[in-house]
Amino acid sequence: MRTGIWLMGARGSVAVTATVGLLALQARLTDTTGCVTELPALRSPALPSFGDLVLGGHDIVATPVLKKAEALAAAGVVPARLVAALTDRLTAHEESVRPLPLGEQPRVAEGIAADLVAFRSQHELDLVVVVNVTTTEPIFAKSDASLGSFPASSLAAYAAFSAGCPFVDFTPSTGARLPTLESFARSQGVVYAGNDGKTGETLVKSVLAPMFAMRNLRVRSWSGLNLLGGGDGANLADPAANAAKVASKQRVLGDALGYEPSGTSRIDYVEEIGDFKTAWDLVTFAGFLGTGMRLEVTWHGCDSALAAPLVLDLARLTAAAHRAGRVGPLPQLGFFFKDPLGTGPAALGEQWTELVAFAAGLSDVEGP
Amino acid sequence: MRTGIWLMGARGSVAVTATVGLLALQARLTDTTGCVTELPALRSPALPSFGDLVLGGHDIVATPVLKKAEALAAAGVVPARLVAALTDRLTAHEESVRPLPLGEQPRVAEGIAADLVAFRSQHELDLVVVVNVTTTEPIFAKSDASLGSFPASSLAAYAAFSAGCPFVDFTPSTGARLPTLESFARSQGVVYAGNDGKTGETLVKSVLAPMFAMRNLRVRSWSGLNLLGGGDGANLADPAANAAKVASKQRVLGDALGYEPSGTSRIDYVEEIGDFKTAWDLVTFAGFLGTGMRLEVTWHGCDSALAAPLVLDLARLTAAAHRAGRVGPLPQLGFFFKDPLGTGPAALGEQWTELVAFAAGLSDVEGP
Amino acid sequence: MRTGIWLMGARGSVAVTATVGLLALQARLTDTTGCVTELPALRSPALPSFGDLVLGGHDIVATPVLKKAEALAAAGVVPARLVAALTDRLTAHEESVRPLPLGEQPRVAEGIAADLVAFRSQHELDLVVVVNVTTTEPIFAKSDASLGSFPASSLAAYAAFSAGCPFVDFTPSTGARLPTLESFARSQGVVYAGNDGKTGETLVKSVLAPMFAMRNLRVRSWSGLNLLGGGDGANLADPAANAAKVASKQRVLGDALGYEPSGTSRIDYVEEIGDFKTAWDLVTFAGFLGTGMRLEVTWHGCDSALAAPLVLDLARLTAAAHRAGRVGPLPQLGFFFKDPLGTGPAALGEQWTELVAFAAGLSDVEGP
Amino acid sequence: MRTGIWLMGARGSVAVTATVGLLALQARLTDTTGCVTELPALRSPALPSFGDLVLGGHDIVATPVLKKAEALAAAGVVPARLVAALTDRLTAHEESVRPLPLGEQPRVAEGIAADLVAFRSQHELDLVVVVNVTTTEPIFAKSDASLGSFPASSLAAYAAFSAGCPFVDFTPSTGARLPTLESFARSQGVVYAGNDGKTGETLVKSVLAPMFAMRNLRVRSWSGLNLLGGGDGANLADPAANAAKVASKQRVLGDALGYEPSGTSRIDYVEEIGDFKTAWDLVTFAGFLGTGMRLEVTWHGCDSALAAPLVLDLARLTAAAHRAGRVGPLPQLGFFFKDPLGTGPAALGEQWTELVAFAAGLSDVEGP
Repeated sequence: MRTGIWLMGARGSVAVTATVGLLALQARLTDTTGCVTELPALRSPALPSFGDLVLGGHDIVATPVLKKAEALAAAGVVPARLVAALTDRLTAHEESVRPLPLGEQPRVAEGIAADLVAFRSQHELDLVVVVNVTTTEPIFAKSDASLGSFPASSLAAYAAFSAGCPFVDFTPSTGARLPTLESFARSQGVVYAGNDGKTGETLVKSVLAPMFAMRNLRVRSWSGLNLLGGGDGANLADPAANAAKVASKQRVLGDALGYEPSGTSRIDYVEEIGDFKTAWDLVTFAGFLGTGMRLEVTWHGCDSALAAPLVLDLARLTAAAHRAGRVGPLPQLGFFFKDPLGTGPAALGEQWTELVAFAAGLSDVEGP
Repeated sequence: MRTGIWLMGARGSVAVTATVGLLALQARLTDTTGCVTELPALRSPALPSFGDLVLGGHDIVATPVLKKAEALAAAGVVPARLVAALTDRLTAHEESVRPLPLGEQPRVAEGIAADLVAFRSQHELDLVVVVNVTTTEPIFAKSDASLGSFPASSLAAYAAFSAGCPFVDFTPSTGARLPTLESFARSQGVVYAGNDGKTGETLVKSVLAPMFAMRNLRVRSWSGLNLLGGGDGANLADPAANAAKVASKQRVLGDALGYEPSGTSRIDYVEEIGDFKTAWDLVTFAGFLGTGMRLEVTWHGCDSALAAPLVLDLARLTAAAHRAGRVGPLPQLGFFFKDPLGTGPAALGEQWTELVAFAAGLSDVEGP
Repeated sequence: MRTGIWLMGARGSVAVTATVGLLALQARLTDTTGCVTELPALRSPALPSFGDLVLGGHDIVATPVLKKAEALAAAGVVPARLVAALTDRLTAHEESVRPLPLGEQPRVAEGIAADLVAFRSQHELDLVVVVNVTTTEPIFAKSDASLGSFPASSLAAYAAFSAGCPFVDFTPSTGARLPTLESFARSQGVVYAGNDGKTGETLVKSVLAPMFAMRNLRVRSWSGLNLLGGGDGANLADPAANAAKVASKQRVLGDALGYEPSGTSRIDYVEEIGDFKTAWDLVTFAGFLGTGMRLEVTWHGCDSALAAPLVLDLARLTAAAHRAGRVGPLPQLGFFFKDPLGTGPAALGEQWTELVAFAAGLSDVEGP
Repeated sequence: MRTGIWLMGARGSVAVTATVGLLALQARLTDTTGCVTELPALRSPALPSFGDLVLGGHDIVATPVLKKAEALAAAGVVPARLVAALTDRLTAHEESVRPLPLGEQPRVAEGIAADLVAFRSQHELDLVVVVNVTTTEPIFAKSDASLGSFPASSLAAYAAFSAGCPFVDFTPSTGARLPTLESFARSQGVVYAGNDGKTGETLVKSVLAPMFAMRNLRVRSWSGLNLLGGGDGANLADPAANAAKVASKQRVLGDALGYEPSGTSRIDYVEEIGDFKTAWDLVTFAGFLGTGMRLEVTWHGCDSALAAPLVLDLARLTAAAHRAGRVGPLPQLGFFFKDPLGTGPAALGEQWTELVAFAAGLSDVEGP
């Protein structure tokens, strides 16, 4: 059950935090806080263990992973003592991170697939799961795109499917969400999951919005401001990428409430704020007899530290689903995403129930 | 199916808000926002309609209900236009509110029971549900109390059971939670529910704490400050009543998380703050690799407006349960309470699932 | 010393709140909370008393002032009991509110001036101060505008000066801030003040930014989100007006700190939020040895209730300055404004010291 | 002008942060952010330069300063790179930190004074300023205490005065605030300053409370909750020390507003929260016509990083005052304290004006 995780964007904050974390888990230097698949309700023999996982990936930048890890330690994202203790392992991991192939789309796709196959072979892996943790792309509107006109995230999905690899999109980009790619995944017999990891403000929304719904309280407005620096933040200063992210963030409200309250969720890039995002939400709502009330939430979280264990969770679950014979989209993983595939529930509690059942189902299949 | 609701504390803020609200619903002057039993998942022919409900109650104070309603309107708790439109109905309701009998406990209990029987008879009610909305009592430690040494809330439960009436305790007081009273309820064939309506900070905790648990995030501390004026607030300036309330508020964390984080939840009475309570919570938590993060929540809610529709919901559900032949405690109503009877789930989503199943079960019994 | 206050925008929220307030003060139905000129340090025989003030104004809308006052009462901006008690006075006041003249700029200016002269004569007023409380205009860039190409606020200033009236601009619009208007004011021997009343988030900034400066703490970022409904909010949904307001809001930081921190202040119109604006600010700052810290502020204020007494204060002070022989801009009133005329201090405490000295100076002149 | 700073509590968080900071300034490894005396308005040839300062002190604990510095670095209070770069200097500094003498009060005072004299002599210091940064003592009520019954902070002041040293009390303890000690200071010709460094919530109050006062807004309630871990926090879990601190924190409101609003400021020790204190304040206030509004402030600051540069500032200013011939209490340093000596202003802006004039006066004396 040796399983590879191939990170598109392997030198970015999320990927390097996941890398430091997995190496630390393998070296027994940390515990499994933040890893959903280690909760009793989800633990399963069907999931590859942390010891079975091997990391690799592509990136367009060249900063060594170790150097990035040191920068994350200086910013308080990962403990400096862990980076120091893992220096040798991080250096060894460097060999598995390759430059993203460049050129015409068919050639790039071939290059990616070739790297995946080589990685699988070199490390004697049973399976490689590709996880997209690159920065957010601008909104891509064409649903009839095909090879040659794919956005980068869809090209990555195509390449993964070509190589027989499951694909997880942790970003709001298009990824596998094109009709032609769904067909291709099915024809290749692979699964995929996404989109847009639910790590902060939206996670909170996914429990608070159902709370208002269950109490029959009427949400009048829900407004938010996300302030973040760091790499992902800089990308979101681009209006097109920002629009993609904002759309993904608001979807949960309509789904959970059954109507769209007023207000929007803004994202501002403020370099000085760094990797610990601060999001403020104001909810105004009406209770019995129309009485107006309000709720304010300030979330101060480190996106990379929140995302990294979910990357490992998703790779484990997707690998197990693939091995259990599932094919195509995995809407049962909506628990992890802001904008899940399919039409599952928006409330975190219901997504959890669905996830537990899904994981149990994989385990049954695994049984003797 | 004409059903009475007998409010212990009928001239208090919660009771009068419930009274204005029910009369407004009956006069079609307001909608059902805040009424949980009007949500599609809970609507049921087994529940008495709002038109079937008749209100009465006891109180030790003598302020007319209309005058209290006007004071609530001035404070923004209920709309002034509703109180104006309902003046005649509120005045008529006054006849059904009686002074609490005084004297030795056996005589008081007899007096309460006699008033309940008279109310049932006078209004040709099929059933009367007694709901305790008096102010919080100090913690009562003796589990072997018997008639003569009951706290007031337990005496009310005893009297209700004597008269064959279900009992709902919306307060953190002892109420029916004494072994002798459980036996007595069973022998009388009545149901009871409680304790301590979940209307604000604890409601939010009951969705946020499970969120941390489901994501395997480690809550390090959870501290809160509740600032409130109004009648209930003044009572909570008493350290003993305060202790009873605080204990009830923290229970949800241990239940939902599986461990007790540091920190306490304080309640301060600040007269100038009035009926709109402000509660602030700070949660510090650790994610992957121990990275520290934090969440702040400010809740600005009107307790009476939040509690009043739940009082109606609980009376409807308890009446239906009684009619469906249930007897003794109703732990399935944990959705409504801070400190529910029994050992049900602490997460609001799970409590909701249980409630929906419970309500559906009552409906089945009602079927032809 | 009978003094007129002519409100441009006399049927808007700020103007009607000021009207209700002045009539209530004259009828001794309220106290002077919020009136800066009633503080011991500013009280002066040079200021016209509340009893000496007479209100009139222009507006382009036709909603009766009484009806607007009732709407403000329903929204909690002014007490309903005051509006009820002042019904006759508000109806009488209606006669002094005239439709804004329409047509070519020279004709409009003549019409405004004629109305001012008629108001002064009819009420036997010694002086009329014109106060602009219309909604914010888009940014106006041309500094060489002249009659015919003036923005509306500048046309109002021109008309006021023509009629020998002081002019106060409570908005961020251009108003008297054109070289040709400064010259004209001087030639007419009148004073003027502005711009943009400092009522909420910026008021708080004007004390917090100097606090960081006095402690030599380095502000790294200062970001804000203003959420507001109501009339002024709707206008600010227009990007151009929004830009004018935002520019005015950020100016205080650079002035008080000596450098421009990162971050911006956003304004979002959310109709459901109504007249009570909520503004949230996040300040990140560095202390000794670069240690990062943060401050969050949530302001929940009613702009009209904050602005209205300042309108009265400014009219009193401007009238007194005019009578004391001052001419041209009054930079000493920076205490009241987000974007004051001249180059005075940005710190509220220093503006206060300047204001106290200014008021004392007016009083000296008044002496026998 | 070589000047000693003798820290009572030399191994505590504030003292060690000040030590790391001064050594870093002397080594030109950091800038002067947070040092008030480096602002242009206060810079003065009368102040000893950072290069002129030499640190020593007493403590009852034995943890090496270097070890404490490393712990502070791990907690994010000081940068780890600074502690690493200053290892040799911190080790050398260790020699100047001596165990607090024990025994009967007269003997302890003699021991402290002897250590001060020896330190002055050994380092060829012109003057030694004693600064109390020990943990808060319980409230001490007896104003007629004398040697033998002094609280520890007063004993330290006595010993300092005996040795001809100025004394600064950065804590809310009694310190020099006993009639007998004021007389003694005058007879010894030394100055002293205090009490209770204003580093966080109270600093914010000292600018916000005057803001409400200057705008004639009526503060109805001001409630606060301070959550802190770290050494000082643990001490404040003791109710008596807590009471001393709370009393000091609320004094500013009455002084700045002219009346005492409702509400209290609580301090809770929550170990998990560590050195970065979070304080939340809710202010409810009335504006024109009684309209209710509110302000919320969350302060997330590192007390030690805020206090340490002020310790250096106070030592510099006190040394200069002593050299300029001042004697007795220095109420002009109210800018730095929660509970200043004398009856000076409570508003930070006015305290600043007084401080600037005071510093300028010292400089004049220094002139040729």
